[in-house]
Amino acid sequence: MNAIAASTNRKVNVPLGDRAYDILIGPGLIARAGAEIAARLKGRKAAIITDENVGPLYLNALVESLTASGIASSALVLPAGEKTKSFEHLMTACDKVLEARIERNDCVIALGGGVIGDLSGFVAGIVRRGVRFVQIPTSLLSQVDSSVGGKTGINSRHGKNLIGVFHQADLVLADTDVLNTLSEREFRAGYAEVAKYGLIDKPDFFAWLEANWQSVFSGGAARIEAIAASCQAKSDVVVADEHENSQRALLNLGHTFGHALEAATAYDSSRLVHGEGVAIGMVLAHEFSARMNLASPDDAKRVERHLREVGLPTRMSEIPGILPPAEVLMDAIAQDKKVKGGQLTFILTRGIGQSFVANDVPASEVLSFLKEKHPQ
Amino acid sequence: MNAIAASTNRKVNVPLGDRAYDILIGPGLIARAGAEIAARLKGRKAAIITDENVGPLYLNALVESLTASGIASSALVLPAGEKTKSFEHLMTACDKVLEARIERNDCVIALGGGVIGDLSGFVAGIVRRGVRFVQIPTSLLSQVDSSVGGKTGINSRHGKNLIGVFHQADLVLADTDVLNTLSEREFRAGYAEVAKYGLIDKPDFFAWLEANWQSVFSGGAARIEAIAASCQAKSDVVVADEHENSQRALLNLGHTFGHALEAATAYDSSRLVHGEGVAIGMVLAHEFSARMNLASPDDAKRVERHLREVGLPTRMSEIPGILPPAEVLMDAIAQDKKVKGGQLTFILTRGIGQSFVANDVPASEVLSFLKEKHPQ
Ligand SMILES: NC(=O)c1ccc[n+]([C@@H]2O[C@H](COP(=O)([O-])OP(=O)(O)OC[C@H]3O[C@@H](n4cnc5c(N)ncnc54)[C@H](O)[C@@H]3O)[C@@H](O)[C@H]2O)c1
Ligand SMILES: NC(=O)c1ccc[n+]([C@@H]2O[C@H](COP(=O)([O-])OP(=O)(O)OC[C@H]3O[C@@H](n4cnc5c(N)ncnc54)[C@H](O)[C@@H]3O)[C@@H](O)[C@H]2O)c1
Ligand SMILES: [Zn+2]
Ligand SMILES: [Zn+2]
Repeated sequence: MNAIAASTNRKVNVPLGDRAYDILIGPGLIARAGAEIAARLKGRKAAIITDENVGPLYLNALVESLTASGIASSALVLPAGEKTKSFEHLMTACDKVLEARIERNDCVIALGGGVIGDLSGFVAGIVRRGVRFVQIPTSLLSQVDSSVGGKTGINSRHGKNLIGVFHQADLVLADTDVLNTLSEREFRAGYAEVAKYGLIDKPDFFAWLEANWQSVFSGGAARIEAIAASCQAKSDVVVADEHENSQRALLNLGHTFGHALEAATAYDSSRLVHGEGVAIGMVLAHEFSARMNLASPDDAKRVERHLREVGLPTRMSEIPGILPPAEVLMDAIAQDKKVKGGQLTFILTRGIGQSFVANDVPASEVLSFLKEKHPQ
Repeated sequence: MNAIAASTNRKVNVPLGDRAYDILIGPGLIARAGAEIAARLKGRKAAIITDENVGPLYLNALVESLTASGIASSALVLPAGEKTKSFEHLMTACDKVLEARIERNDCVIALGGGVIGDLSGFVAGIVRRGVRFVQIPTSLLSQVDSSVGGKTGINSRHGKNLIGVFHQADLVLADTDVLNTLSEREFRAGYAEVAKYGLIDKPDFFAWLEANWQSVFSGGAARIEAIAASCQAKSDVVVADEHENSQRALLNLGHTFGHALEAATAYDSSRLVHGEGVAIGMVLAHEFSARMNLASPDDAKRVERHLREVGLPTRMSEIPGILPPAEVLMDAIAQDKKVKGGQLTFILTRGIGQSFVANDVPASEVLSFLKEKHPQ
């Protein structure tokens, strides 16, 4: 059983020199977590951080697996949701990890989605100025995006993810079985980020998704393949620009508009979750690129068709409730991005899989585009 | 005037590759801070963090100097003292720095002793996952020790400095004029760390201090020389082992006993400040080395003679109030260091300037030594 599971697993290595690490992707990985960790880390103690949705489902299996490999563990179960990325929970978690007497070679394990991953990675980065860190991402978004690349952090009242460190994981275990308990809405939201990698610079991957998305949604080999391709894509970008001085910004395709929409809906996940904002944002980025005569309008239509087909929203008008006027959305964009001399940095595109970082996008063009798309 | 000041300044470079930085040492540096920062950093915004003792004395001069060089600044004045290295003040400071809209190329400036330096460096390391950091250390201890080497952090109820990051400064300005307002007791405490560098591996420097300590205390060229030599010594160790995997531990000479005494006096600075604990601890480390037949007892006597001469305590019996019994001190040591199979890691010595990391010190020997030194 374990042997079969292992043989269907995929491995993506993130080659960051002496901080290189493996991402294992496939079924049954929680059951094998103890063995995989014991094979890589010297310490025999782990502090698990999880949330109230994921803990009841998978914590026992993880603890059992660790125990079987001689790793003693403690667990902290935090509330689920974005609000957990706060100073208050950071403090609680640091205290818990110190109480468990985690030393440099022991590890913090994040068992959950991106919220738990971002918080736990930050904890692992600052307790004793850095201990080992293992990610067990359980949402699709965290498996294909947040668990790779070392960005960790919490939110501030001044904005999202404004406080944190770069702290790479030592191992990522993306157990694809656990996605079966994820809500369909959250799965779809994560899928927006999968599609994003195609749209950034992998037109063939995007075409493959158009043909195979149903198999990705239903599980099995296509799902593993899509997750592995996404991790590989993210790894490539991260390795080229770990600290986001240049090309890593491409990962923000669709995110400038998306973040503005998240802010405009006050991060109320009943109205909009991150991946949905990204889906709408990617369509807008392609439409705006067409408007700037950079890409064909047909590309924007193709992007929209696919995202709509999988069930993602693609239009601002699909967001329930009232959106603020274009000027307010524009303010949110300007805050996120800093306007320099009336110009913004934006991820634009010349077509499917041909995104680029544009440093000179006129704010006035963005505003009139938004007014067109979202007339009051 | 500025030209004269500049000519008496010393510069120590910490050659850490693309994170290399200068330590400038000498009079008049606060007045020149704006110019020195503007010459090195791209940003034109600074968030100053200081404490209630240092702020009233030097904040105005610093702000003026920054303004004159086109650097806009905001300031946060925190309570003085070790308790300020807490999560609560970390949160307040992060918020203040974000409110000041500090971006990656702008800087956080620490204006104060090691407490302000450790907290501010941590803030600079985590706001936006790292912004620029300038140290203006104002205590002797912070000028010769804490401002160099990138260790930052706060305390936890589980122990001192348990939460933090490595975040190197971009510039250190050690203005030797400001030491004139430091209490004599704090100056002496900082001097213990200066002497430490001689005792670690610079016997000639220790001999020079024995001959010149009075000039170091009275100010002028000898003081600048002693500070520069100390920064150079610390820089050498840090460059060889930035993240304390091996030789950086030598900097803990005298600190194992010292920390135990600080814990035993509940970090009550009216009874013992850190440098005083280190002074007593260094004498104990030399005596214990003699007892283990590693060094001559004459060396311990020579260390004690010099530290006593400058006015530092050298005996546990000099600490006001009642000390707990040897067994309790031993527990504190064991907690600090971890006992593995009854053995401790300790910094011992073969004589003046011949310290080394010993990994196999029998805990039982340390305990009987402590009982001898501190009979109940
Ligand atoms: N660090 C990075 O590089 C990076 C990149 C992208 C996003 N992020 C961050 O990731 C976060 C979003 O991540 P997310 O979408 O995973 O959010 P999340 O962690 O809140 O998870 C979404 C919801 O699904 C639940 N859940 C997760 N796995 C489950 C499972 N297997 N079964 C049942 N329920 C499950 C969670 O409890 C939660 O309610 C945001 O905070 C975002 O800022 C970080
Ligand atoms: N990061 C490191 O590598 C490192 C190394 C050694 C010590 N430390 C830390 O440094 C701290 C101790 O530093 P410290 O001794 O500077 O303590 P401190 O910052 O508390 O300063 C001592 C006292 O002197 C006052 N003061 C400072 N400069 C003054 C001046 N010019 N005039 C008048 N008053 C002044 C302060 O307000 C304070 O009351 C500890 O928290 C210790 O853990 C860190
Ligand atoms: Zn995203
Ligand atoms: Zn010290």
